[in-house]
Order: sequence, then C-alpha cells, then structure tokens
Amino acid sequence: MSDEVPARGGARRAITGYSNPTVKFARSLREKKHRKREGRFLAEGLRLLTDARESGYLPELLLMAEGREPHDLLTLLEGDVLAAGGDVVTLPVDVLAKITGKENPQSVAGVYAEIGRSLGDPDRAAAPLFLVAQALRDPGNLGTMLRTADAVGAGGLILIDDCADPFSVEAVRASMGAVFTVPLVQTAWVPFIAWLRSGPGQLVAASLREPHDYRAAPYAAPCFLLVGNESRGLPESYEAACDLRVKIPMHGRADSLNAAVAAAVLAYEALAHLQPG
Amino acid sequence: MSDEVPARGGARRAITGYSNPTVKFARSLREKKHRKREGRFLAEGLRLLTDARESGYLPELLLMAEGREPHDLLTLLEGDVLAAGGDVVTLPVDVLAKITGKENPQSVAGVYAEIGRSLGDPDRAAAPLFLVAQALRDPGNLGTMLRTADAVGAGGLILIDDCADPFSVEAVRASMGAVFTVPLVQTAWVPFIAWLRSGPGQLVAASLREPHDYRAAPYAAPCFLLVGNESRGLPESYEAACDLRVKIPMHGRADSLNAAVAAAVLAYEALAHLQPG
Repeated sequence: MSDEVPARGGARRAITGYSNPTVKFARSLREKKHRKREGRFLAEGLRLLTDARESGYLPELLLMAEGREPHDLLTLLEGDVLAAGGDVVTLPVDVLAKITGKENPQSVAGVYAEIGRSLGDPDRAAAPLFLVAQALRDPGNLGTMLRTADAVGAGGLILIDDCADPFSVEAVRASMGAVFTVPLVQTAWVPFIAWLRSGPGQLVAASLREPHDYRAAPYAAPCFLLVGNESRGLPESYEAACDLRVKIPMHGRADSLNAAVAAAVLAYEALAHLQPG
Repeated sequence: MSDEVPARGGARRAITGYSNPTVKFARSLREKKHRKREGRFLAEGLRLLTDARESGYLPELLLMAEGREPHDLLTLLEGDVLAAGGDVVTLPVDVLAKITGKENPQSVAGVYAEIGRSLGDPDRAAAPLFLVAQALRDPGNLGTMLRTADAVGAGGLILIDDCADPFSVEAVRASMGAVFTVPLVQTAWVPFIAWLRSGPGQLVAASLREPHDYRAAPYAAPCFLLVGNESRGLPESYEAACDLRVKIPMHGRADSLNAAVAAAVLAYEALAHLQPG
C-alpha cells in the first residue's frame, strides 16, 4: 500500500471531501495499474461484501455512504472489520459514487487485498471440472465465468494469455462474489500446458473444427474446459493440443455464442457426464 | 423522423462538425426516449451491419469514419444503401466515437428503422422453443439472450414487463446481429399469459422452488422458457402459472446463475429433448 494511505488501526472515521487521500487511494483502484501496484481491489454492495465475509474475506477498508439504511449484516461486517484491525469510513454518497464509478452506487464498498494464486495451486483432485479462459477481454464475461465456475463446483478458473483483469470493478461485480470463492490462476499458454501435462487432466476445447457433439463426447475427470477470445476464438495450435474438441450446435445465423454462455453450456453438460445422478 | 434530418435521397456526404444535425440526430439515438420518438436505432461494426444486410436490413443512414481501411463488404453495403435511397456519410473518427459512445469506435455505424412486432406475431408452429424474459434490466444480458435465441433456433424472444430496451447500443452490440434475425415481442404479463393460453404452449420457469431437475423434465413443444429479473427472479405468481418449474443445480456458494447464462443452459437442454438427434 502506498504511504499516502493511513496506517491500519481498526478505527472509525468520517470523510467529506473528494481530495481526501483515502478517497483518492480507493478511487485509484478502478485502474489496473494501481490495483497491480497496491495489490488491492474494490468490491461493492452489501450482498457481495457479506458473501466475502462468509467466505473468510474482510475488507481492509470498509466504505459506507452517509444516511444509508441500517442493516444487521452491515453491523456484523463493521464489527468484524474493526476487530480485524481494518478501517471503517463513512462518506457522502456522491463521494462513494465517484469511487465506484456507478451512477446509482451501492451504499457499501470495500478495499480488499488481492487473492493471488500461482499455477502450482489448483488441486487436480479437488473437483472433476476446471474452467480455462484464453485471452478473454470482457470483464463482464470474465466475472460471469467466475460465477459459473462457482455454480458448477469447478476446481478453479485458469486465465491464459492476455485476459481482462478479474479484479476490475466490473468483473468483481459480475462474479457476484465468486471472485472470493473460486480459485483463480493467471498464467500463459506454455506454462499452463506444461503444468497440465505433468499430471492427469483432459483438455477440452469448444471448437467449430472436426468436432464431437458436445452432448455425446467422452468427458473424463479432471476435465479442463478451454474457451477462447470473444472475437477470434482459440488459436489453431491450442485447439490442436487439446485431447477433445466439442461443438455446441448453432441453429441460427450466427456461428458462435457469447464466450461466457458457451463456457456455461459446456460446463453443465460435462458436469452431468462427470457426476451423473 | 424529425424534420431536422435531411430527407432521404441516396446521397453521399461528408460531415466534419459535432453540431451537424445528422450527427446530433444519430447521437440522440443513444437515448431511449429519442429512439422511441424516432422509431430508429443505432448499430455499429462492419460485421454486424453485414449480418443485417444479409438478413435483409439496410441502414437508412450509413456512417463511416474518414481514413478507414477499404473493405469489400463495406463497398457492397455502401452500394446497397445508396441503391435503396439511403444516405452515406463520411465523418471524422472522433465524431463517430461521439455518436456511438465508445472510446475505440468501430469505423462503421448505421441508423436503422426499428423492427416492431406485436404479440400476435410469433408463430407457435415456427419453432419448438421460445425464450421469454421478465423484467430483464441489463442490456448486455438482453442482447446475449437474443444471440442465444438465434443459436438455439428459437421462434422468438418475448420481453415481459419492464425490460431493458433491446434497441439500445449495448443490447444491439451484445446481440451480435440477432436483433435483426430473432422475432422480438415487447409486452406485459397479463396479455402474454392470455395469448399463450389461447393456443398450445408449455410455459417453463427456471426456479428454485419445488423443481424438476432441468435434465429430466418433460419438455413439450412449443416450449416457452421463462427467465426472471437479475436480482429478484420471477414473481411467485408467475412461477405458479407455469406448467413446469425446473432447477439448474448449483454446486457452489451462490444460489443463481447470470440470467442470460441460465437461459442458455436451459434452452440447450430443452432443445435436446425437443429435437433429439
């Protein structure tokens, strides 16, 4: 954390101005370079912050709008943040809106330490299914894939190559809290494929070329479902390196689904094969 | 069209300034009230405009950035627009960016007449499957559902109650052209259910209450899949009016999927039952 930021002290404070260093710090986290430098990210909304708390994550800094409605879950959250040595800051609603960049802001936001995981971390034995995204550029799609990964009980989401930042406000919002619960790995193709081939694991691509029908394919655990970039799809060499290529049938004019939708359709189908009944 | 807008004449023109009436008119279409008043909407990107052309829709006004790369598909589009009596306007890239509201704008955009359809229009016999969205608020989700409706060959997307505008720039973008190909109906619950019950049709809700597993449910054509609002889900009385309630299993912490994802997982599963093999 930069030295502009007050030391953590488990204190309550009120802030009124835009130019306060804490406001500037929190607001800077909307930009990736600042998130990266600080190792911190923003999440907003009482529901999301409560999901995080129940998953064992507390914000270092809890931001609350003046004049918000009282809520038992918010009282619990405040108490836990202070007990853990975090700061609780009250500020005008328009200042909070400036931080989260939303016209109708939620009345609560938090600054969290980034949840970093290296490629060594995913546990192949933890789940029958993992999601892998390659060069996924839209933060909403990325957050939605995190949410889907949670829903199918995936062992993790592995981000390959130049993906959107999973800690952006938009991705965190779309993940509906899954950013706190789904193991996340950020890596590149070469280290990923080397790691995958060092143990058991079936790599499956959603593909338009020489495909199995996705409902009749021989999925095997641990199954890694690979979905490519929104406009270009997967590089041909990545598809060629897969153990299985499957096609979701397209009955209309278009030749592809939204990337997050394709991942979900595929993941639910694979899950039914891997965990029947 | 308002009288500020030059009469259609199949002409080429160049525009340089922000204050030109055509620029103001096109830009106003980013707002719903202006789209509604004018009965026009904006679409952007050569791929989308080409999809529209191939589906029989030409823009009344074609907007092209100065200094764009030449492209055969753009030449075809220009020719067709002029032949149909539309205008072709060249303008600086920053003016085009102002119109579409995107920082890195596509180099082509078009103004289209809205594709209006009343509730009488969907043809129950046209397809085994229809999608129905209730109070869907996110234009990205709405566009993604249109794209999915195209992919599953749905007979249409029926919008119930207060949904986002399917003709917003964001929804059109997310639909990837499906706004031009998927029959679209905007109505409310009472006229919808009255229309549905006036003929054959199974109404199926994605639900968390007393549900069939979505993979083993007795889907029957014509099947109308109903998905509710992003945060509140469906009103209980709507669920109660359904012929079938199905549940997509949730294996993680969260209790729901993204609405567009849920619609797609359900639609592909139902399709496999309705059109086996």
